[in-house]
Amino acid sequence: MSLSSISSEELWQRSGRLEGRDSEFLRLQDRKGAKYLLSPTHEEEITEIVASSVNSYKDLPLRLYQVTRKYRDEARPRQGLLRGREFLMKDLYTFDVTEEEARATYDQVRRAYSAFLDELNLPYLVANADSGSMGGNLSHEYHLASANGEDNIISCKKCDYSTNEELYSGVLGPHELTQSESPLKGCDINPILTSTPFLSKDKTALFNIITPRDSGPLNTHLLKKLHPTIDTTLEAPFKTWSALNTKNPTRTRTETQIIDGRLAHLPLSNPTGPTITHHDTALTSPSESSTCPSCHSPASLKVSTAIEIGHTFHLGTRYSVPLNAQVLSSNNKLAPISMGCHGIGVSRLLAAAAGLLMDSKGLNWPMKIAPFGAVVVAAPKTAEEDVLSVYDALALSSTPEAAAFAVPSTSTMGSLDVAIDDRDRPLGWKLNDADLIGYPFIVVLGKAWKARGAVEVQCRRLGVKEEVALGNLVDKLKGWQSQL
Amino acid sequence: MSLSSISSEELWQRSGRLEGRDSEFLRLQDRKGAKYLLSPTHEEEITEIVASSVNSYKDLPLRLYQVTRKYRDEARPRQGLLRGREFLMKDLYTFDVTEEEARATYDQVRRAYSAFLDELNLPYLVANADSGSMGGNLSHEYHLASANGEDNIISCKKCDYSTNEELYSGVLGPHELTQSESPLKGCDINPILTSTPFLSKDKTALFNIITPRDSGPLNTHLLKKLHPTIDTTLEAPFKTWSALNTKNPTRTRTETQIIDGRLAHLPLSNPTGPTITHHDTALTSPSESSTCPSCHSPASLKVSTAIEIGHTFHLGTRYSVPLNAQVLSSNNKLAPISMGCHGIGVSRLLAAAAGLLMDSKGLNWPMKIAPFGAVVVAAPKTAEEDVLSVYDALALSSTPEAAAFAVPSTSTMGSLDVAIDDRDRPLGWKLNDADLIGYPFIVVLGKAWKARGAVEVQCRRLGVKEEVALGNLVDKLKGWQSQL
Repeated sequence: MSLSSISSEELWQRSGRLEGRDSEFLRLQDRKGAKYLLSPTHEEEITEIVASSVNSYKDLPLRLYQVTRKYRDEARPRQGLLRGREFLMKDLYTFDVTEEEARATYDQVRRAYSAFLDELNLPYLVANADSGSMGGNLSHEYHLASANGEDNIISCKKCDYSTNEELYSGVLGPHELTQSESPLKGCDINPILTSTPFLSKDKTALFNIITPRDSGPLNTHLLKKLHPTIDTTLEAPFKTWSALNTKNPTRTRTETQIIDGRLAHLPLSNPTGPTITHHDTALTSPSESSTCPSCHSPASLKVSTAIEIGHTFHLGTRYSVPLNAQVLSSNNKLAPISMGCHGIGVSRLLAAAAGLLMDSKGLNWPMKIAPFGAVVVAAPKTAEEDVLSVYDALALSSTPEAAAFAVPSTSTMGSLDVAIDDRDRPLGWKLNDADLIGYPFIVVLGKAWKARGAVEVQCRRLGVKEEVALGNLVDKLKGWQSQL
Repeated sequence: MSLSSISSEELWQRSGRLEGRDSEFLRLQDRKGAKYLLSPTHEEEITEIVASSVNSYKDLPLRLYQVTRKYRDEARPRQGLLRGREFLMKDLYTFDVTEEEARATYDQVRRAYSAFLDELNLPYLVANADSGSMGGNLSHEYHLASANGEDNIISCKKCDYSTNEELYSGVLGPHELTQSESPLKGCDINPILTSTPFLSKDKTALFNIITPRDSGPLNTHLLKKLHPTIDTTLEAPFKTWSALNTKNPTRTRTETQIIDGRLAHLPLSNPTGPTITHHDTALTSPSESSTCPSCHSPASLKVSTAIEIGHTFHLGTRYSVPLNAQVLSSNNKLAPISMGCHGIGVSRLLAAAAGLLMDSKGLNWPMKIAPFGAVVVAAPKTAEEDVLSVYDALALSSTPEAAAFAVPSTSTMGSLDVAIDDRDRPLGWKLNDADLIGYPFIVVLGKAWKARGAVEVQCRRLGVKEEVALGNLVDKLKGWQSQL
């Protein structure tokens, strides 16, 4: 598919998403004053199209995808392609008759996404994720591990637990619930705890969050989930609270004390209001000393910064109900279609891969997404037919069909596209430029070519710089490319 | 390249194109109020990028292209993809050191565009064209002849004259200048002429355009060129003129009589103002009886309605001067880059080709732009391996490399991508759907396959429905495909 980048406000009103995300839309009007927005995603458009063109269970399953530009009016666009206001996305929308079939489709897509990331040969993480404004209750994020990442992924070294920090439940192991008990008995408790104030959004309630001292920053995702009225964005909440109370000493207000599970055994009384103790839960962000919420192994968690490059969502009937996308089932009853949506951030993936593999000389593209797998570079005055003979040796050996004729059983060469740098520049200049561009392989016709018909193969990522006879070139590259 | 669809108003202000085309921009602002527009074309953006990254004549020639979405807030979007507000365009920008080199580049692109249109196997026209708001003084349009077209192309049956009506000069042949003289002498002239009123844009001047009766509609493109103050969009100009004069009888005004060359010999006096006679020029649109402005053959013109699908422009320094795109020449002097821009309307080309070749059963794609050259359709319960054997016979024979092994000298098969319709539907339903989709070839595994291992090849465009033995299939398709 290739859906329009422009969507009407009216359609987003019907799905109920126009107001919630208001501030992130880039909006525009045409010469007649009709109201449009630049689509950040296409659930509304695709559901509308399917609703008007699919009628029977026989038309399903249906899977539609596109690679198009998307738009978000980010408050802080940054890091180039990693968080821009215009970005390229592959989005797949799936349509099934039943919830069960939609979940089977979801599993297929998850496996395809993991297979794709396996082929990239880059370190990645799959994490349980929050569905956010997209809707639905089952979703996974796909991350490339990166020091530049803006997401924290919590995973366990002992089991397969892996989740975005947003979903970390803070569940404490039995170990943590008892461990801190002994040294605190009868002591002055102030040195061992931290109290952090927050106000409610309407500023009528003060929450003091009590956590063990030095247990790390508060887990604001979890706090908002446990206490949805809390406003975590306000700076200097206690100052605001005091000022309001001074101005109007008799106003209605409450002061609530919220206790981290690791402090549940302490005598923390609250003279001015209620106390809520989250007995089994840590209210701070997870760290390497935290207990795994899944297998309960102590100190088994790993926190990785990462860049999200994909997201799968099982949507169910979140969009098919409001936009009236129904089919007649085999027993002739109308039922809403069960949907999924699945995205890969194409431009973001390029930026993340570039950031992971670049070095001081230039980029390095993973073989599977390199526009060209190799470049042929020759010293000045090399005969053009020599250059073409090396090109042919690489390009003709690389198509599956040709490989079927030549080396039917061992070919893993996939599709190696080859470029020739035939610009009128010195060899050194062209080699530097090839390093900068980041071809996986550079094949050089230099001194060894003139002396004995051999090329030099360079692969910066593997530290390879090796003379290879033309007859061995394809086999040699096949051996190396599986590591790229 | 892949330039952003969003451009800043500031950049278009610098090139001087922000105000002129004002009404066709889709404009937007971000959350900070910065002003943007959705780019209808990318001369400004690409010139800005090249200005900041190219410094020496050694970096030129440079040719940069992209296929991206473009936007225009059309007053009357219509005919689906033919005139939409969002469209897909291939745009190439060329950069040369000198005017001479830029013109040589222009000729190369012209030849490439004609070669591409030759390969489409559809009737097309190349016409001299007006450069319009793009700038420059050399441009050509590429049209598919079509009854649905909105452009009129004037060409000569006797020479290679071909131009968009906008550029038709109306030059009269000697034949026409004398022909009409004899029968008019001494007659009452009113029955043989038509007078059409126009006002000037400021409504202070009335123009009466006098043309031979029944000589066709006025050539408004030419009138605007000859008399730039004329407003050709006003309805009922004489009524407006009279009302203004009645309201203010003493206001400053002029009445001018403008005479078509074919009436130059008549005694047409104007009692209320000046008379301008265009002695050698017809002021009406060209028709089949008009004289060719190039070879002057009488009644040799052909007027074809057509759809513009491409445009080449030699721009010279129209953008490089205001946007400061200069290079150091070989003698170390700074000079503005000489540019060209060249576009193919990709989505419009699809719509035009669809309109030209469709029939009551469905679409018909030209072989060169068909996503799949053939579809394999089998009767229910045909063994999957049988379907795959037919697919392999087509797909393996079609790559240039494989063809080099099989039939090295006669292969014209290019790249035939083959689809298999493996949906669980009756054969008749799938054949109708294949007709609707418009695959150039449908290869059917039906009764003949079960009886004697032969397929049926259908090609609606050529009226082919023929039983072919599997061993002859590739050769047969090769024979037909050159006509598609």
